[in-house]
Amino acid sequence: MIALDAHGADRGPATVAEGARLAGVPVTLFGPAAELPAGDLVEVEDCPLAIGAEEEPARAVRARPDASIARAAAAVAAGRADALVSAGPTGAALAASVVHLKRLRGVHRPAIAVLLPVPGKPTLMLDAGASTEVRPEHLVQFAYLGAAFMEAVHGIERPRVGLLSVGEEPGKGTPDVVAAHQRLAAGPLDFRGNVEGGDLTAGSCDVVVTDGFTGNVALKTMEGTVRTVVGAIRDAVRSGPVSSIGGLLIRGRLGALRRALDPNSAGGAILLGLRHVVVIAHGSSTAEGVAQAVRVAGRAVDEQVVDRTRAALEAGDALRSSPAGSVSGQP
Amino acid sequence: MIALDAHGADRGPATVAEGARLAGVPVTLFGPAAELPAGDLVEVEDCPLAIGAEEEPARAVRARPDASIARAAAAVAAGRADALVSAGPTGAALAASVVHLKRLRGVHRPAIAVLLPVPGKPTLMLDAGASTEVRPEHLVQFAYLGAAFMEAVHGIERPRVGLLSVGEEPGKGTPDVVAAHQRLAAGPLDFRGNVEGGDLTAGSCDVVVTDGFTGNVALKTMEGTVRTVVGAIRDAVRSGPVSSIGGLLIRGRLGALRRALDPNSAGGAILLGLRHVVVIAHGSSTAEGVAQAVRVAGRAVDEQVVDRTRAALEAGDALRSSPAGSVSGQP
Repeated sequence: MIALDAHGADRGPATVAEGARLAGVPVTLFGPAAELPAGDLVEVEDCPLAIGAEEEPARAVRARPDASIARAAAAVAAGRADALVSAGPTGAALAASVVHLKRLRGVHRPAIAVLLPVPGKPTLMLDAGASTEVRPEHLVQFAYLGAAFMEAVHGIERPRVGLLSVGEEPGKGTPDVVAAHQRLAAGPLDFRGNVEGGDLTAGSCDVVVTDGFTGNVALKTMEGTVRTVVGAIRDAVRSGPVSSIGGLLIRGRLGALRRALDPNSAGGAILLGLRHVVVIAHGSSTAEGVAQAVRVAGRAVDEQVVDRTRAALEAGDALRSSPAGSVSGQP
Repeated sequence: MIALDAHGADRGPATVAEGARLAGVPVTLFGPAAELPAGDLVEVEDCPLAIGAEEEPARAVRARPDASIARAAAAVAAGRADALVSAGPTGAALAASVVHLKRLRGVHRPAIAVLLPVPGKPTLMLDAGASTEVRPEHLVQFAYLGAAFMEAVHGIERPRVGLLSVGEEPGKGTPDVVAAHQRLAAGPLDFRGNVEGGDLTAGSCDVVVTDGFTGNVALKTMEGTVRTVVGAIRDAVRSGPVSSIGGLLIRGRLGALRRALDPNSAGGAILLGLRHVVVIAHGSSTAEGVAQAVRVAGRAVDEQVVDRTRAALEAGDALRSSPAGSVSGQP
């Protein structure tokens, strides 16, 4: 059972409900019941209250436990659902997850992981914006989180891991990046060293690790560049009669390419480092985009991503050490 | 007179020499004289020694004052040339500039500024990699450096300046970015607030300010994405007989677009914050790319970029304050 927040998506609750129907797995929708048709695999819990994109997420989640994203997260925490999916604001989903679902024991920070829309070569980049400032041990944990996800959900044995920096040499980058490089090189992952911005779309790694500031800028730069280039090609083709005919002849092929580069097809971002699976679909998702996000969440649950992540972090000795005798481990 | 390093370009000294000839302004080439034809406007100083891309730049520049980039920079410092141009390794050009040309009084760090290849909408981004870690006052200075350059060399009155971050709200980003935002908002520039990665190619600002780590990653991400998208379109078009004919019909238009997106057409990176003009052409520059870099340097000299930069920093009260009574100002 997947808990799906029906609020906050650009195309409205009805599109989210249609995504739930298309997903083909059991879903509970949390949103305005009057706009949400139930179905064979789709239940509805009435939650008229939403958290808006303009609100300070952590405060809003704590102040309004009745909001749909908070109730959906609470349902997962209580064991009534296996995973949380949202197409609403990333900040609200992240805040609800941290408050209700908790970090894995020994994990410093959850990370937002995104599958980059590189045709035929899925590349997971994390963190894409959860933490704008990180320490070396955070970057090291991100590497294990990402590798465990790609192995479990995408079936990639021994994923190749790269560390985003400003040059290939181990000494390039900020002191924190250099320190993370040293620790990753000494660990059990298939660590390929530093990679640069140009490698993000080259398919040379399965997992690329960076801080949330750089990752967010890189992701949005990539999306903006695709938009600009595709738009410029369209304008160039339309600007003359001969090329316009040429444009008609290539339209089918370009359509397939545009779908391959569409963030919807990747199924959204994944929050890693928590005790449960959380997937955040793109805010502009179509019903099929929402359905894809729900399927990714279902696969992550089936493939026991959380347990495998914990095991990978342990094997890499990358968990935060608790004080001797402590039983909390979750300060 | 422009001092042009003939070593270090991917296509070799002869291509650099051809670029000097095409530039149409007086140039002195520093490189292997046997491979460098002099001409009406082109003089040659024989410098067989080069600094390689694999060397630690600052050490190499100090250890080998006879290397071509060091001698070219020294010629500018001595007043025998007005500006330095190189198509060799960025690190060596930066190191030679810092050692020989010195920072402007009151400037914390020089910045590498690049004109992003956005068709029809030149956008200057800085820093693109000189300093991987910066403080808020560095970011503030970068804004004034970039605005003065765009005004002087590209004739843009009151350039619109954006600060790269992970959200539009003034509170988004690292504490350093937030602090820089506050100071820029209080200053005399046309400051448009935070911009995101997607804005880099949108043409919504004339100058985008960021640290050298993020800027380097963003620039290379952009270049890599253009390469991937253009390559995918070519593959898609060639993959069937109908679309192949369509591809032939649009070839002329796509060629013009590819040239607009070509880093060569922008004329290279500019080092700002120094006492002289320095332009670094793309390592893979063609002769025309080198010529364009030489012309940009010439225009920057003619338009007195250095003096105007100093005036802009003063007007914005963005210069580092010297200790009272100090006359050095250049610790």
